[in-house]
Amino acid sequence: MTTGTEIDADLRPVLPLTAEVNAAGHLAIGGCDAVELAREFGTPLYVFDEADLRDRCREYVREFSARLPDVGVLYASKAYIGKALAQLLADEGLGLDVVSGGELAIARVAEFPLDRVYFHGNNKGREELAEAVAAGIGRVVIDNFRDIELLDEVAREAGVRQPVLLRVTPDVDPHTHSHITTGVLDSKFGFALAEGQAEEAMKRALAAPNLDVVGVHCHIGSQLFETEPYAAAIEKTLAFAADMRRHGLNLREFSPGGGIGIQYTRHEGPPPLATFAETIATAIKGACARLGLEIPRVTVEPGRSIVGRAGVALYSVGSRKDVPGVRTYVAVDGGMADNIRPAIYDAKYEALAAGRPLAALEELVTVVGKYCESGDVLVRDVRLPHLEAGEVLAIPASGAYCLSMASNYNAALKPPIVFVRDGKARLVRRRETYADLLATEVD
Amino acid sequence: MTTGTEIDADLRPVLPLTAEVNAAGHLAIGGCDAVELAREFGTPLYVFDEADLRDRCREYVREFSARLPDVGVLYASKAYIGKALAQLLADEGLGLDVVSGGELAIARVAEFPLDRVYFHGNNKGREELAEAVAAGIGRVVIDNFRDIELLDEVAREAGVRQPVLLRVTPDVDPHTHSHITTGVLDSKFGFALAEGQAEEAMKRALAAPNLDVVGVHCHIGSQLFETEPYAAAIEKTLAFAADMRRHGLNLREFSPGGGIGIQYTRHEGPPPLATFAETIATAIKGACARLGLEIPRVTVEPGRSIVGRAGVALYSVGSRKDVPGVRTYVAVDGGMADNIRPAIYDAKYEALAAGRPLAALEELVTVVGKYCESGDVLVRDVRLPHLEAGEVLAIPASGAYCLSMASNYNAALKPPIVFVRDGKARLVRRRETYADLLATEVD
Repeated sequence: MTTGTEIDADLRPVLPLTAEVNAAGHLAIGGCDAVELAREFGTPLYVFDEADLRDRCREYVREFSARLPDVGVLYASKAYIGKALAQLLADEGLGLDVVSGGELAIARVAEFPLDRVYFHGNNKGREELAEAVAAGIGRVVIDNFRDIELLDEVAREAGVRQPVLLRVTPDVDPHTHSHITTGVLDSKFGFALAEGQAEEAMKRALAAPNLDVVGVHCHIGSQLFETEPYAAAIEKTLAFAADMRRHGLNLREFSPGGGIGIQYTRHEGPPPLATFAETIATAIKGACARLGLEIPRVTVEPGRSIVGRAGVALYSVGSRKDVPGVRTYVAVDGGMADNIRPAIYDAKYEALAAGRPLAALEELVTVVGKYCESGDVLVRDVRLPHLEAGEVLAIPASGAYCLSMASNYNAALKPPIVFVRDGKARLVRRRETYADLLATEVD
Repeated sequence: MTTGTEIDADLRPVLPLTAEVNAAGHLAIGGCDAVELAREFGTPLYVFDEADLRDRCREYVREFSARLPDVGVLYASKAYIGKALAQLLADEGLGLDVVSGGELAIARVAEFPLDRVYFHGNNKGREELAEAVAAGIGRVVIDNFRDIELLDEVAREAGVRQPVLLRVTPDVDPHTHSHITTGVLDSKFGFALAEGQAEEAMKRALAAPNLDVVGVHCHIGSQLFETEPYAAAIEKTLAFAADMRRHGLNLREFSPGGGIGIQYTRHEGPPPLATFAETIATAIKGACARLGLEIPRVTVEPGRSIVGRAGVALYSVGSRKDVPGVRTYVAVDGGMADNIRPAIYDAKYEALAAGRPLAALEELVTVVGKYCESGDVLVRDVRLPHLEAGEVLAIPASGAYCLSMASNYNAALKPPIVFVRDGKARLVRRRETYADLLATEVD
């Protein structure tokens, strides 16, 4: 697939599959020259490698299907969703997790098969649920007692029996940032197994005439590098499901959630997907055998690990500031408005000069954005060539939780998105304009 | 102005000026019933008290003008800006700080007098500068060496001599969150006084034929409760300005920036504005006398302290989750998409039941949003009545850095904004729609 020079081996794992150094000595993705992309579409620009996206989808389907009899891979839209991505995912046979009417609207515009869409959330609105049920959504994941009441009512009004999963909180600590730890006891999500809450919820859901409880769900957190917490959560959740047979549960589906991490920096990566798949499948099969359960359909919910590595952010370098003996700042034309992750999670990234990815790394700098706040740092302490104003800087592993969390802080315009493949770039989202900024102002 | 019952004295300082309990026993702002506003415009909803906004503008003008001969109060748009607010500020005689072409576009649509607009930023784009100069912007605040070159070029092309201030970094620690500390040596903003950088910048700016250096600027940080750091920064910056007379600087204007804090919670507030004004004016007059400088025009740049208290966020309560012995979660229909501050700055807020602000505070709860992330907390550990689904929850002091940093995370629709005054509510920004979410998607 690649024909150019190989990239720095340390950076290879954080770059998209098709990243290479082309004949011009530039970074190329999907056969498209990154410097040319920046020129054609302007910066900041988000570039997604279609080959990488499809490869990750296929790897998920392959690794889980090789180990379990019936598997569904559902992409977690919150990592980033748009029409083009939804269409690609549908084409690859994936399902979709949505958490709002807005995400459902995007799925519908993309004509995503709605029976493969799951609706999540700790505080679903009545209208959102009504929209979802009317659209024929595949599953609603019940998160709290109010969901049971509301959805039963909404489903009755729509004259349907809605298939649901019940989300439980297995009280397992996955060792990640506290903002994205979800499966501990002190969590806003799901029913705690302790104190009989999950059992009470299961009884009510099974008794609700317009709900069809097909299974259980758990999700322990995000950006995880360890496999063992999955095994622990699966063990606890399936033990609960087995116990619930006495209330009439027939377990046809089980989801151990998502959260598998990706590599953001040179030296810190998770184990390969096969290792997670092996741990998860082994835990499920082992628990089912011990508990006398038939192995249910298993749905997994990757978000970041599908889109994270495929996406590269391109910026133009602007001003520099040397504070002698302290730090050199290199400012680019984006920052915390398009990528809030360093400010909110203390997230780390790599950076490279798109116009000369093989150049000597002459200096240690801190890459900052253009927004009026000191927290607007993209990469602290990264080695780069001495960059001049106008050069293009690439930040890899920017596909997840950048665009979806982007703001208009400082009246920034949200960046455009291009999908690249076989030397062709396709604009899938245009840059916002001043008119877009003002679209909701009322005279 | 208020005719109803007085609110809890502890909450009074965090609520807008006209907040009261009306005859229905509800929270009212600007004579408008908050529960009715939530019903009419939906939730989440941001409500701004026009009387509070105007009062704060007048207090700024009054307190500084009483102590200094020539004062300009410039509102820092990044806290939140929209057409209606810009018009109100213009009406009150304020100026405006903008930091991007987008903020300038909003000022222009509002027909804000552009000679009272200042352009800031650590990495201004060439196009933005060209737009600003062509529009006849009042001042550009030079932040780095590239600004000097770029702006001189842009001004020459436009055939103008652009008035500018030079921003220096006085190396004063204001004791606030590191994300919003800007005046220390290790900052991306401004020219360090140390090592001769600021002097070199001043020489170059004075030598640039199309720049007219009218003065100097410093800004030490945001949400400050202490007055002393202002005095220290003023002393250092004016000493620098006095020294620069030998390169030909004629100091006609000086800005000690903004950053004065507001009260967010019951027991933690800053000193009154008069105390800050007194410290700042005394420091300026003292330094000028000692240094033999005429007292220049002084521009101050409040953002948060103009809009923060005037804005109240209204949410509807949805699901609850009790984790016995651990915590009770109450979920509302907004959260980190419209208010990222708790996640990014660990910001604290109060909360009150808009429908019964005088009710007994029966329980200790954590108010969370509806977004799929554990970091989506609005208020941790707040005492409230036992709220039922559908009740309206008010979060005071939400006027600054909520709307301006709002995202579409989880495909959330950005909330509408109403201005209230004398019993009338005026929609100034409508809620986004699914169509807005999809507006930039390309087929």
